[in-house]
Amino acid sequence: MIGGGQLARMTHQAAIALGQCLRVLAASESDPAAQVSADIVLGSHDELDDLRRAAAGAAALTFDHEGVPLAHLEALEAEGVAVLPPSKALHFAQDKLAMRVRLAELGLPVPAFADLAGDREAARARLVEFGEANEWEIVIKAVRGGYDGRGVWLVDGADEALAVFDEYPSDAPALLAEQKVPMRRELSAMIARSPFGQGAAWPVVETIQRHGQCAVVLAPAPDLSDEVAERAQQMALRLADELGVVGVMAMELFETVDGELVVNELAMRPHNSGHWTMDGAVTSQFEQHLRAVLDYPLGNTAPTSPLTVMANILGAPEAPEMSMDERLHHLMARMPEAKVHLYGKGERRDRKIGHVNVVGRQGESMESVRERAERAAQWMSHATWTDGWDVHS
Amino acid sequence: MIGGGQLARMTHQAAIALGQCLRVLAASESDPAAQVSADIVLGSHDELDDLRRAAAGAAALTFDHEGVPLAHLEALEAEGVAVLPPSKALHFAQDKLAMRVRLAELGLPVPAFADLAGDREAARARLVEFGEANEWEIVIKAVRGGYDGRGVWLVDGADEALAVFDEYPSDAPALLAEQKVPMRRELSAMIARSPFGQGAAWPVVETIQRHGQCAVVLAPAPDLSDEVAERAQQMALRLADELGVVGVMAMELFETVDGELVVNELAMRPHNSGHWTMDGAVTSQFEQHLRAVLDYPLGNTAPTSPLTVMANILGAPEAPEMSMDERLHHLMARMPEAKVHLYGKGERRDRKIGHVNVVGRQGESMESVRERAERAAQWMSHATWTDGWDVHS
Repeated sequence: MIGGGQLARMTHQAAIALGQCLRVLAASESDPAAQVSADIVLGSHDELDDLRRAAAGAAALTFDHEGVPLAHLEALEAEGVAVLPPSKALHFAQDKLAMRVRLAELGLPVPAFADLAGDREAARARLVEFGEANEWEIVIKAVRGGYDGRGVWLVDGADEALAVFDEYPSDAPALLAEQKVPMRRELSAMIARSPFGQGAAWPVVETIQRHGQCAVVLAPAPDLSDEVAERAQQMALRLADELGVVGVMAMELFETVDGELVVNELAMRPHNSGHWTMDGAVTSQFEQHLRAVLDYPLGNTAPTSPLTVMANILGAPEAPEMSMDERLHHLMARMPEAKVHLYGKGERRDRKIGHVNVVGRQGESMESVRERAERAAQWMSHATWTDGWDVHS
Repeated sequence: MIGGGQLARMTHQAAIALGQCLRVLAASESDPAAQVSADIVLGSHDELDDLRRAAAGAAALTFDHEGVPLAHLEALEAEGVAVLPPSKALHFAQDKLAMRVRLAELGLPVPAFADLAGDREAARARLVEFGEANEWEIVIKAVRGGYDGRGVWLVDGADEALAVFDEYPSDAPALLAEQKVPMRRELSAMIARSPFGQGAAWPVVETIQRHGQCAVVLAPAPDLSDEVAERAQQMALRLADELGVVGVMAMELFETVDGELVVNELAMRPHNSGHWTMDGAVTSQFEQHLRAVLDYPLGNTAPTSPLTVMANILGAPEAPEMSMDERLHHLMARMPEAKVHLYGKGERRDRKIGHVNVVGRQGESMESVRERAERAAQWMSHATWTDGWDVHS
């Protein structure tokens, strides 16, 4: 697996049960996955030779992020490496513009968008035209490289939009503008696909974002009709098939105020919106990703409980009064049923350093499960508990 | 953790979620735990200096087997190492005679037994006396070092018993004789105890032995009255408290034909009878062992499903027609809900190389869950499926 972050760490955990050890290409021995796996290759995902060293002798090459240059992956494929998902699919997870163009071609619902690449003057004119056509209810995004809110500008009106465009460095990844969809909430449809096309979908979940990053996941999405849930799953399965995805894929969706679904983002790797599966589903997204890329039949995706809530643990602000370890002691004493997953990362304000899953008890309401999960995560994040579920605000 | 076997391997898996990496003292880099952990100390559990190297800087020293010489542990304790469980408790898991004497002192039910240590002539006379008093319905056991059926002789009558005694090498661990209890079945009460005495018990399970080793575990033990189950849990919790155990402890019990409980063996470490907790309980025995020895509050031991069955995967006889990997492919295709745990061990006939957990569906019978689990494990063991649940017979 290319990348030594928490996704690789948790994939290694799943690999152990399958009788395997996950080899990880990590930047440093202190990376979350490098701390715990016996098979580490130190190097950079930007260096073809490092990628080659990581791939040597491995059954398949896969990823915990979207950062590997496509040209390197194509070179590896030409050398016979089983790159999974393949570069032709991964391209659409790396490049938001290509993704939107392809989805629109396939008739899948995407927000209206405008390409802001190429000649600056022409692109600026397209931004103005697109902005006016949408009454400046738009978002500007970098075509590649963004995550957890980076590379996304929620602009308020023409002046802000044009300022973002004008100040944007010319050597950075291209921009696109997108219509701001009047939405009710965000959903995620997580699926897996094997090399020969077997597909499996987990229940569709609701994701709650804070400060541009996923904070809480409700599984399954409350009050979602079976019809809409199945539509989301089928869209994700169909797209994975059309693109030739191998592994797990998260399709992030907006549910609009009038009940329509619009595709927001794609991730072709284990995803924050799938962490609940570690304790709340028969097969976790990490085991499933390994099954898919190693070409084993896929595991059962049924939930093990009617309700599970995942909440991210964020790094505390500078110099917390209570150490992480003390906080963990108190949480375990207070909630012996909370499933805590820590990533071995140093604390830094608002950095994702772990998550908590709370699996609902028989007959418990989503409100109650969510309160327990959020309370646990906020405690671990050293945040003050508020009714408004606000972390470090 | 001293020992690089599957118990250490699965403890490392649990350590990852707690933000830790398990350091393992392993004999070889190919040991099951050494294959997957980033922190390996190569050495022998018989060498005090190797134990010292493993303990250096660790929060606590714990075990995946009973083989470490007690004198070494006492030396480490004198040097300030947190040996958990402490030597004074571990002594009773290492020495079956000391265990029986201590349990009898505490008023806990043990089978009648006779000490066969010391002067050979005198010991032989005690064996004859004990045998006759019990109509030769006896078992002979090595006081230490036995596991998975080794060090236990199920003798049929006086001649066989005396032959075992007479042929037993004089430099091997001492022997004891024990009354063969007329039993209905075997049970296991698994508990955990923290340094300050917090205790937690999982549901009592039924264990099914084949060829002297644990083959199948039914969780919870079918048709066990609440009263007997609670008695077993309380015996285990009380004993752990009396002995000062820290960590998990399995108390293996006989349920006699007249419904009484008799203590058979003790293990002060994760145990085969607790593998079902990995998929069938809120907190697995591996996470719980870490919580206890690292002095975190203990986790919830509630089952996540009314029924879970664990079945061991054994190594195939020589030159199996189908490789382990092919068998795994077929199993995953046939039973996408089976949870397979492989230990990274080479195949050898009847060697424990993994296990399967099957978690029961709502309303499913124990018979049905057991059939699925046994079918999966026997398939993986390359055994012929028989109604008699017989493996490699």
